Amino acid sequence: MEIGLVGLGKMGANMRERLRAADHTVVGYDHNPEVSDVDSLEAMVAQMSRPRVVWVMVPAGAPTRAVIAELAKLLDDGDVVVDGGNSRWTDDVTSAQTLAERGIGFVDCGVSGGVWGRTNGYALMCGGTAEDVAKVQPAFDALKPEGEFGFVHAGKVGAGHFAKMVHNGIEYGVMQAYAEGYELLEATDIVDNVTDVFRSWREGTVIRSWLLDLLVSALEEDQGLEKIKGYADDSGEGRWTVEAAIDNAVPMPAIAAALFARFASRQEDSPAMKAIAAMRNQFGGHAVHPDAHAVRPDTEAP
Amino acid sequence: MEIGLVGLGKMGANMRERLRAADHTVVGYDHNPEVSDVDSLEAMVAQMSRPRVVWVMVPAGAPTRAVIAELAKLLDDGDVVVDGGNSRWTDDVTSAQTLAERGIGFVDCGVSGGVWGRTNGYALMCGGTAEDVAKVQPAFDALKPEGEFGFVHAGKVGAGHFAKMVHNGIEYGVMQAYAEGYELLEATDIVDNVTDVFRSWREGTVIRSWLLDLLVSALEEDQGLEKIKGYADDSGEGRWTVEAAIDNAVPMPAIAAALFARFASRQEDSPAMKAIAAMRNQFGGHAVHPDAHAVRPDTEAP
Amino acid sequence: MEIGLVGLGKMGANMRERLRAADHTVVGYDHNPEVSDVDSLEAMVAQMSRPRVVWVMVPAGAPTRAVIAELAKLLDDGDVVVDGGNSRWTDDVTSAQTLAERGIGFVDCGVSGGVWGRTNGYALMCGGTAEDVAKVQPAFDALKPEGEFGFVHAGKVGAGHFAKMVHNGIEYGVMQAYAEGYELLEATDIVDNVTDVFRSWREGTVIRSWLLDLLVSALEEDQGLEKIKGYADDSGEGRWTVEAAIDNAVPMPAIAAALFARFASRQEDSPAMKAIAAMRNQFGGHAVHPDAHAVRPDTEAP
Amino acid sequence: MEIGLVGLGKMGANMRERLRAADHTVVGYDHNPEVSDVDSLEAMVAQMSRPRVVWVMVPAGAPTRAVIAELAKLLDDGDVVVDGGNSRWTDDVTSAQTLAERGIGFVDCGVSGGVWGRTNGYALMCGGTAEDVAKVQPAFDALKPEGEFGFVHAGKVGAGHFAKMVHNGIEYGVMQAYAEGYELLEATDIVDNVTDVFRSWREGTVIRSWLLDLLVSALEEDQGLEKIKGYADDSGEGRWTVEAAIDNAVPMPAIAAALFARFASRQEDSPAMKAIAAMRNQFGGHAVHPDAHAVRPDTEAP
Repeated sequence: MEIGLVGLGKMGANMRERLRAADHTVVGYDHNPEVSDVDSLEAMVAQMSRPRVVWVMVPAGAPTRAVIAELAKLLDDGDVVVDGGNSRWTDDVTSAQTLAERGIGFVDCGVSGGVWGRTNGYALMCGGTAEDVAKVQPAFDALKPEGEFGFVHAGKVGAGHFAKMVHNGIEYGVMQAYAEGYELLEATDIVDNVTDVFRSWREGTVIRSWLLDLLVSALEEDQGLEKIKGYADDSGEGRWTVEAAIDNAVPMPAIAAALFARFASRQEDSPAMKAIAAMRNQFGGHAVHPDAHAVRPDTEAP
Repeated sequence: MEIGLVGLGKMGANMRERLRAADHTVVGYDHNPEVSDVDSLEAMVAQMSRPRVVWVMVPAGAPTRAVIAELAKLLDDGDVVVDGGNSRWTDDVTSAQTLAERGIGFVDCGVSGGVWGRTNGYALMCGGTAEDVAKVQPAFDALKPEGEFGFVHAGKVGAGHFAKMVHNGIEYGVMQAYAEGYELLEATDIVDNVTDVFRSWREGTVIRSWLLDLLVSALEEDQGLEKIKGYADDSGEGRWTVEAAIDNAVPMPAIAAALFARFASRQEDSPAMKAIAAMRNQFGGHAVHPDAHAVRPDTEAP
Repeated sequence: MEIGLVGLGKMGANMRERLRAADHTVVGYDHNPEVSDVDSLEAMVAQMSRPRVVWVMVPAGAPTRAVIAELAKLLDDGDVVVDGGNSRWTDDVTSAQTLAERGIGFVDCGVSGGVWGRTNGYALMCGGTAEDVAKVQPAFDALKPEGEFGFVHAGKVGAGHFAKMVHNGIEYGVMQAYAEGYELLEATDIVDNVTDVFRSWREGTVIRSWLLDLLVSALEEDQGLEKIKGYADDSGEGRWTVEAAIDNAVPMPAIAAALFARFASRQEDSPAMKAIAAMRNQFGGHAVHPDAHAVRPDTEAP
Repeated sequence: MEIGLVGLGKMGANMRERLRAADHTVVGYDHNPEVSDVDSLEAMVAQMSRPRVVWVMVPAGAPTRAVIAELAKLLDDGDVVVDGGNSRWTDDVTSAQTLAERGIGFVDCGVSGGVWGRTNGYALMCGGTAEDVAKVQPAFDALKPEGEFGFVHAGKVGAGHFAKMVHNGIEYGVMQAYAEGYELLEATDIVDNVTDVFRSWREGTVIRSWLLDLLVSALEEDQGLEKIKGYADDSGEGRWTVEAAIDNAVPMPAIAAALFARFASRQEDSPAMKAIAAMRNQFGGHAVHPDAHAVRPDTEAP
């Protein structure tokens, strides 16, 4: 099939390659002329025959909104836009409405797979009408991994990004579990070589997984992770997952703990712990530490 | 090699099969004469030639202690006992000492793999001296999965069970992450078919794992998990992991959350939430709900 | 001063009494004619002289919006509306704008104190311009507790409800802390009488507080809280607090734990724990429990 | 009554004063001759008439064990030793046994109140037989606050320290709740003056408490807590509380969160978050940030 692809950063460029390797015709556009196939969105659209499918792969929020607004002007009745970025699922309804006013279809698609996706295929979770999804299906088939898994039409518009959001929320929790186990092993000297233990877990264990493989790979490159700072950003989807849990009265303690751990990792000093320390100071007792000479209790300042 | 195997429950019996399939000679003993190869521990030991290796595969705690105490009387200098059960790593030092008084070696070995282990191999994490471990190595090689992973000599006595304990702690956290994501997907009607979404995640995603495969298998058998009660036991290793974290001042919020969720799942009614409800009752205001007729605030009882 | 009061439920009626006891003139309106001083909002407004102050004390959300929309039509330039309900602070800006179009001022005011407020005074946290707040100050002074505490002009519009929201979020965490301690004391038989222990904590301890007093009162009425179900609603402010924390990348593990515990308390069965149980089922091993006769390990199903 | 007091650090010295102010005769002993009334434990005991009551107020663990071992040699049948330090409740049974072999009674007593205790009285939670407690009662009555609260005979030996342990566990949770609320208020600019908001909460609110008073006092001394580092030690009782919860399968998420936050506050860098960052690195995508020029998605590295 023929497909327009807007956004040729790392992900977009890799996806273009995978689509072309499956003999699809990709017209790619990016602000950066060095990677772009055409000079403008207009040129991209002009070059395609109807019904067109345009896959948008730009950052969520304002950039995605801007591209979709432009496409709403350029495309025609029967065309379909796919938002393959990390948009919040609640934004998809707005995108769909904007496009629907012009008779343009909309499919939201959560994409997982990172730099390995080009080779192994991307996991795809999409939302939209069956009719719109069908128009994109050949591209989905090329992008997804071989085999029976890796693609789902999850439901109506928004369902794809919702499923991807939950996927990422789960990812936060899973990563945090490995991380806590790692820290405990490192904190004691009971185990001789933490990397060896993690590596051994890659087969036969209950916790074998792709994330474990990644962690082993990182440990093999840098035993003790000495070159890495304990600082973790968050991309938004963890936050949205916990917020969706709160909206639906779903207890989500482990994923929330993972999110809060990331927040804390970015703080130079914790205002909350300042408050704790300040209260302990007020007890008065905690400044007095027992020493070898005097018999001194320190019964307060818990 | 020749190996004695004490405890022929599901795990022990499967391991006997796997060892025999690798052409090892197994003398198995169990209280249950229907599955036992010999009539008694004495008979087992008598039938073996020195140096003997005896693998104990009985429940942790009193049963393991009892078997090891008996073996201390029956075995000789240079023999080795392996504790392959779920013993707490702190018990291993005691076991090793009991046996060392008679010149008998000791290796602790955490075993993972469940009913799949017979076919796929068991992940093994062991602790002990290099000399003792070497005597058991042929059995380890038969039991572990093929390939380069699945076995580690983690360190001195106790290190094997410690590593297995942390493995299980991580498992609690990973399971909880999937479970929370599952509940959120089920709580909304955004996604059409939760099973389909989970199934699609088996390839190409960041969160693909063996536990995910298990959950998909369960969902395929019972959509909505309607035949299953939300009740989860814990086997001790999750508790020990969190306790070890506390001993070592390691923050472990996600794994602890998973443990607490299991505790809560077993309560008919929560005493803590009774206390919350009791305090709210005392505010007095919360019994008054706004209704359609009256304009009534309910500003307290948060 | 003269003040209009819309909403004469438990809170509103008590506040009317406290205002009148301070010699203020209150014109109260409620849908319920049995408690209302006037027949309609129009009658209320007509009876008051300018500049008018109208205090709205109705449920947050649609009811508050409806009353404010009506008041925007009835009041005049220089009048002030106070929203004393539990509105989300983000709604206050909308309320203020609606009223500002007609030259009407707006003050948001979080109110704490419950049924004790009538006697002891209400804690008040307000937001708005100094000019608008000044017009309401005599009412604030009558409603607040005697002494130097219990009232704060927290900042611009929204600041009052924001402060009240955080107050309630803290309350969730504090209540949860007492509740967890209560459950631990009840779970063991180390302490003879849990009520006696809590009662003793009312003086001299670090954790003495009004909430502790309430819990003691509840325990004295019902030892063991046997008449109370472990079921706790949430009024929204706990959710908003955690959401505000997430928006601001503030770690909030204890308050979030309290919120999640309330969610869980309302579930007949936990879908997440069903998923945990389903995964454990798939391990296969966990159905086999050790018994007194057989020597059976149960090494999986952690 | 006459009472021996071992350990005249800040707490012990204050307690001696309060006991003497109630006309009791105190023979105090401390390693530090400047504060000690006698030269040795022997001298202290020799100076007292039978049945003697000796209150031990030294650090938990080895120091307490050493003093009790010495007293077991010096005291006689019918005497009573009180451990008023922060001993773990499980140590009390050992202390009681050591003393019982010589016919000496034992009472464990958790003490709360800090530097304010001298003036306001100490909250006391004790464990032991009714007979032993009765011998100490006059001292308890002098040390406790005036009024009906602040003393409880919680149960058998160990119950006093158990109750105090739970008290301190609750304290962790309560402090954390205030601290999280404080951080949220500071993280936004919605509220003009965080100190003013906290101060206003001292009366009329649901969350008024002694700990709130302490925090307000700290904020008044140092707005923004700029002189305080976000670093919080823990004295052991929080750990024991969570461990006791785990032993009894009691969910304790909020208090555990408070404990873990303290652990994290003491880390220069978090090994767990290093592991998170390492896994994110392996995704490959996260190093590429969207910039103003290029249209670049960053769809991985959640």
